[in-house]
Amino acid sequence: MDNPYIERVEALRGMMRRRGWDAVILTGSDPHASEYLAPRWKQVEWLSGFTGEAGDLVITADHAGLWTDTRYFIQAVAQLRGTGIELHKMRVPEQVPIPEWLAEHFARKDGVVVAVDGLCQSVDAVQALESAFAAAGRSDDPESDYFYRIVDVPDLPDLLWAGRPAIPHTPVTLMPPEVAGETRRKRLEWLRRAVAEQLCDAVLVCALDEIAWLLNVRGSDIDYNPMVISYLLVREDRIDWFVRKDPFGDSDDPETLDTFAALEDEGIRVLPYDDVQLALNDGLSEGGGINRLFTDPSSLNWSLYSLLSGSGRLCLGDSPVQLRKAVKNPVEIEGMRRAHRQDGVAMELFLYWLERMVLGDKIITERTAATRLGALRAACPDYLGDSFETISAYGPGAALPHYVTPVKDAPELEARGLYLCDSGGQYTCGTTDITRTVPLGPCTALEREDYTLVLKGHIDLAMATFPEGTAGCQIDALARNPLWRVKRNFGHGTGHGVGFRLGVHEGPQDIRQNFNRQPLLPGMITSDEPGIYREGLHGVRHENLLLCVEAGRNDFGRWLAFEPLTLCHFETSVLVRELLTQDEIEWLNAYHERVYRTLGPELPADAARWLREKTAAI
Amino acid sequence: MDNPYIERVEALRGMMRRRGWDAVILTGSDPHASEYLAPRWKQVEWLSGFTGEAGDLVITADHAGLWTDTRYFIQAVAQLRGTGIELHKMRVPEQVPIPEWLAEHFARKDGVVVAVDGLCQSVDAVQALESAFAAAGRSDDPESDYFYRIVDVPDLPDLLWAGRPAIPHTPVTLMPPEVAGETRRKRLEWLRRAVAEQLCDAVLVCALDEIAWLLNVRGSDIDYNPMVISYLLVREDRIDWFVRKDPFGDSDDPETLDTFAALEDEGIRVLPYDDVQLALNDGLSEGGGINRLFTDPSSLNWSLYSLLSGSGRLCLGDSPVQLRKAVKNPVEIEGMRRAHRQDGVAMELFLYWLERMVLGDKIITERTAATRLGALRAACPDYLGDSFETISAYGPGAALPHYVTPVKDAPELEARGLYLCDSGGQYTCGTTDITRTVPLGPCTALEREDYTLVLKGHIDLAMATFPEGTAGCQIDALARNPLWRVKRNFGHGTGHGVGFRLGVHEGPQDIRQNFNRQPLLPGMITSDEPGIYREGLHGVRHENLLLCVEAGRNDFGRWLAFEPLTLCHFETSVLVRELLTQDEIEWLNAYHERVYRTLGPELPADAARWLREKTAAI
Repeated sequence: MDNPYIERVEALRGMMRRRGWDAVILTGSDPHASEYLAPRWKQVEWLSGFTGEAGDLVITADHAGLWTDTRYFIQAVAQLRGTGIELHKMRVPEQVPIPEWLAEHFARKDGVVVAVDGLCQSVDAVQALESAFAAAGRSDDPESDYFYRIVDVPDLPDLLWAGRPAIPHTPVTLMPPEVAGETRRKRLEWLRRAVAEQLCDAVLVCALDEIAWLLNVRGSDIDYNPMVISYLLVREDRIDWFVRKDPFGDSDDPETLDTFAALEDEGIRVLPYDDVQLALNDGLSEGGGINRLFTDPSSLNWSLYSLLSGSGRLCLGDSPVQLRKAVKNPVEIEGMRRAHRQDGVAMELFLYWLERMVLGDKIITERTAATRLGALRAACPDYLGDSFETISAYGPGAALPHYVTPVKDAPELEARGLYLCDSGGQYTCGTTDITRTVPLGPCTALEREDYTLVLKGHIDLAMATFPEGTAGCQIDALARNPLWRVKRNFGHGTGHGVGFRLGVHEGPQDIRQNFNRQPLLPGMITSDEPGIYREGLHGVRHENLLLCVEAGRNDFGRWLAFEPLTLCHFETSVLVRELLTQDEIEWLNAYHERVYRTLGPELPADAARWLREKTAAI
Repeated sequence: MDNPYIERVEALRGMMRRRGWDAVILTGSDPHASEYLAPRWKQVEWLSGFTGEAGDLVITADHAGLWTDTRYFIQAVAQLRGTGIELHKMRVPEQVPIPEWLAEHFARKDGVVVAVDGLCQSVDAVQALESAFAAAGRSDDPESDYFYRIVDVPDLPDLLWAGRPAIPHTPVTLMPPEVAGETRRKRLEWLRRAVAEQLCDAVLVCALDEIAWLLNVRGSDIDYNPMVISYLLVREDRIDWFVRKDPFGDSDDPETLDTFAALEDEGIRVLPYDDVQLALNDGLSEGGGINRLFTDPSSLNWSLYSLLSGSGRLCLGDSPVQLRKAVKNPVEIEGMRRAHRQDGVAMELFLYWLERMVLGDKIITERTAATRLGALRAACPDYLGDSFETISAYGPGAALPHYVTPVKDAPELEARGLYLCDSGGQYTCGTTDITRTVPLGPCTALEREDYTLVLKGHIDLAMATFPEGTAGCQIDALARNPLWRVKRNFGHGTGHGVGFRLGVHEGPQDIRQNFNRQPLLPGMITSDEPGIYREGLHGVRHENLLLCVEAGRNDFGRWLAFEPLTLCHFETSVLVRELLTQDEIEWLNAYHERVYRTLGPELPADAARWLREKTAAI
């Protein structure tokens, strides 16, 4: 029994027996419903070894299961081997979600006690659990014969996880208004007005990207995500930021102390992270000063919800910050353009290097290629770090949309077929996310066809003009239609929103086959990344970030269109030209001309000559 | 004061004063929430002269208003002239719906009494009214100082409308199972199982098309809509059909009596229409036998809802009949194909005649053309009647998507520009709906471009292949994209569902820029009718009905596609060929070949030769 996960699960079961818990749920989430997690909240990985970005664990006396979706089935099977933990598949027709599974699993048991870490549980998830037990005829009255009880154990992993990492305390910096395009004072005043319209006199912000945007601060508490673990409480007469154990005491980093001091100078109180509960309790009590507190349930954890909901002063709704943050201001747009010029230079130097290495029969692995790209990005003047972990994938590896490039023994690139690289950078002035798929030598007819059809889809979406009010789900088909016509498709969304020096994934808009009603608005930045994945063969994805822009008004109404922010050529040698329409060819030639005109002057002479050839009109 | 509508409104106001009503609402609806109305329920037209298909009236002591949407603004302005009734615009950003308008209008009045005909009021509309009054601080307690009361006066128009038409009693016929593809016994048993799954032991069906489909009966109580005004109550031990004043007593039509007798033979009790309330009251009372009654609130009127909701035995939900009815069975599909062959012959003979008349300098009006087409359809062996009022529109008339061709003094066709004809037939074996736009001589560059771009959109949607699970709103953009690319658009949906010898509009699927989640399923029939409308100039619309069909399964999943049911050529002489892609040209040539092969043999020799030319490959 040298598998550490077996031991950990057994230790948890021992504790469950002692405390009378029938089941424990551990989620792949943190107290702020973040998409990516600081090490402290990687409890799923700690207990199971599973490292996918979405997965929840349920442990009972006789079962241990991991619930995850289609993206991670292959990875989960490999990582769970030998742990005794079973995979439960989600986003498949026969899926049985955790609440229904638990209700069924304990169907013949009288009382059921489920323990959760309420800090890492969404309100929705707990309510779904309550509904499933109620639908199975269980009562929440502990006196009942057939009861259920959900026990909130904040920081439950602490009970077992020796050496569990602390809440991260990375340096916190100010983003000056000349970079953000707007002062925090203006943003906070706008937020106060927005919640006042909801008849609220206070708002609790839990989503880390919203806090970073509102306060114009950045940190690096979560890999790739320049955010600061904290809560923000904005009231009519004061603003409290709950951050760190002891904000002025536990840091010897002068920049962080300067940041905190600057905020205090502006009247924002910088308080210990753990004080948020007390402050809310006080504020919501009789005479505490808060009459109605607005908060967004999608980023509120269950522990806080339980605390707040009893007050009768809670007003739940979609955070207004999300939409306003998604519509970039002119300074942010200019910053994004600047970041993309630097990112384009790094990408072109990378592709130039890659081509020379392959032509020169040099041995390169997926990992050395990723490292080289990282080094080229790091040389950019405004570079701060990557915006997510680079996917550097050759051949069959690229057939996994969420491939993780191995650190050791990564596959070598060969002088044939397709290589896919999906990467991005955080710059002081913006965030990038780009995918290029390039031929490393001769390609099969299927590779060339797939490459061309995916590019057609990419271009057709990028070329789109559409009436104001159109939502992403209503134009997603433009990117898929060239593939659909020959019965090919891809299983992920076509586009996600992108933050400004913030998360590389942000809402509220997206472009995918869903029913998201959020219209695309001028100033929004969304990726355009159709793909195709053939298990064991190859994968293709072409991704630019698109800025939604005004395209005029006429008798038929007001029009919107896209402007690509990403600057990097698409390899034309591998295209099946006959599959492209004249419009598509013209778009590609014009885009390539722009890439060359913008990046050429920034490149060394040999690379510029090479790029001139790569961007020649077809 | 010779305007009859002024007198009618004044008479209504007199009655309102006598009864203490502050407002009366009259809706453009009937007790079954039908889209089209029998004359008895044209109370809006009777009181205001407005004949549009959507419009509600509100009368107060000092205001009379008609609420209608964008489609009918021009018509409403013309028809309301001199009546003193004001137009209130809906589906515009600044719209004020009736509930909000009433709450505001009476803001400074203590108590407000609103009278409605609950038979013609939807449950939603009354609840919206209640919400608006509540939001304005009003109480439904009549003892309150600031109260509101909604008075249900079933058949309210009877109080004033001398000579109001009776409930129609048109002949009722049986649709044999060899035409319907399924017996009523099977459909009714399926319905019983479907509601049993909802833990209900009875279901009240109010939607007329659902009743006609379930019972395999047809009538002609509503123009163009072969339905029978009735209610259907399906219980575990009996089936009651409430139809006519005295079903076996008030008819001397032998076919109707035979129909009723046949149903009774199968155990379906044929009862008087007005008995439905009593039967529901009895059934829902203690020991009445109904434990839980299922019904769809979208077709339930407020009078019935008020009766049922007090019982505590009501279960509201989407009717399962809608979806099953929309998925046509193989016999229905074969019938639809047969109907479309006959309809295609009539259409081609019409277009052949039209061309000869115009070339021969004959004087034709929009009305004589419509009459000619009607006569050609009437000559089809299975023809029963039209499926809606033919839109026969030349030049600027066609720029109104819902143009009504004048009966007298209709515009003459000229030997230039575009003529649009949107029409359809009811056949014993199916329902058709087709629009063709044809040049009558030289066309402007703009006419040719618009004609071509709309046809591109039509073809792009018709050519689509898409994965199972795709909803209409997710592919609507395929039909719009060719227009969007040059910043043109149309303000109506791209496609509506079509019934089988039933309503020419039916749900639950559609293809439009909405968020309707209903996936398109094999067997569904939906129109494909993009258009473009230029005020004062011309209008273009190209419409076929498309059958959704299976298109195979592969590594990427299960695929669906469309097969056009409509058979009639598109005029190619006016196309701007360079605007079409090779794919589009191939689709058009293949479609035309099919049109000629199918219809050619059915046409007289001269017309067949003409069609051969019209369908020549381009």
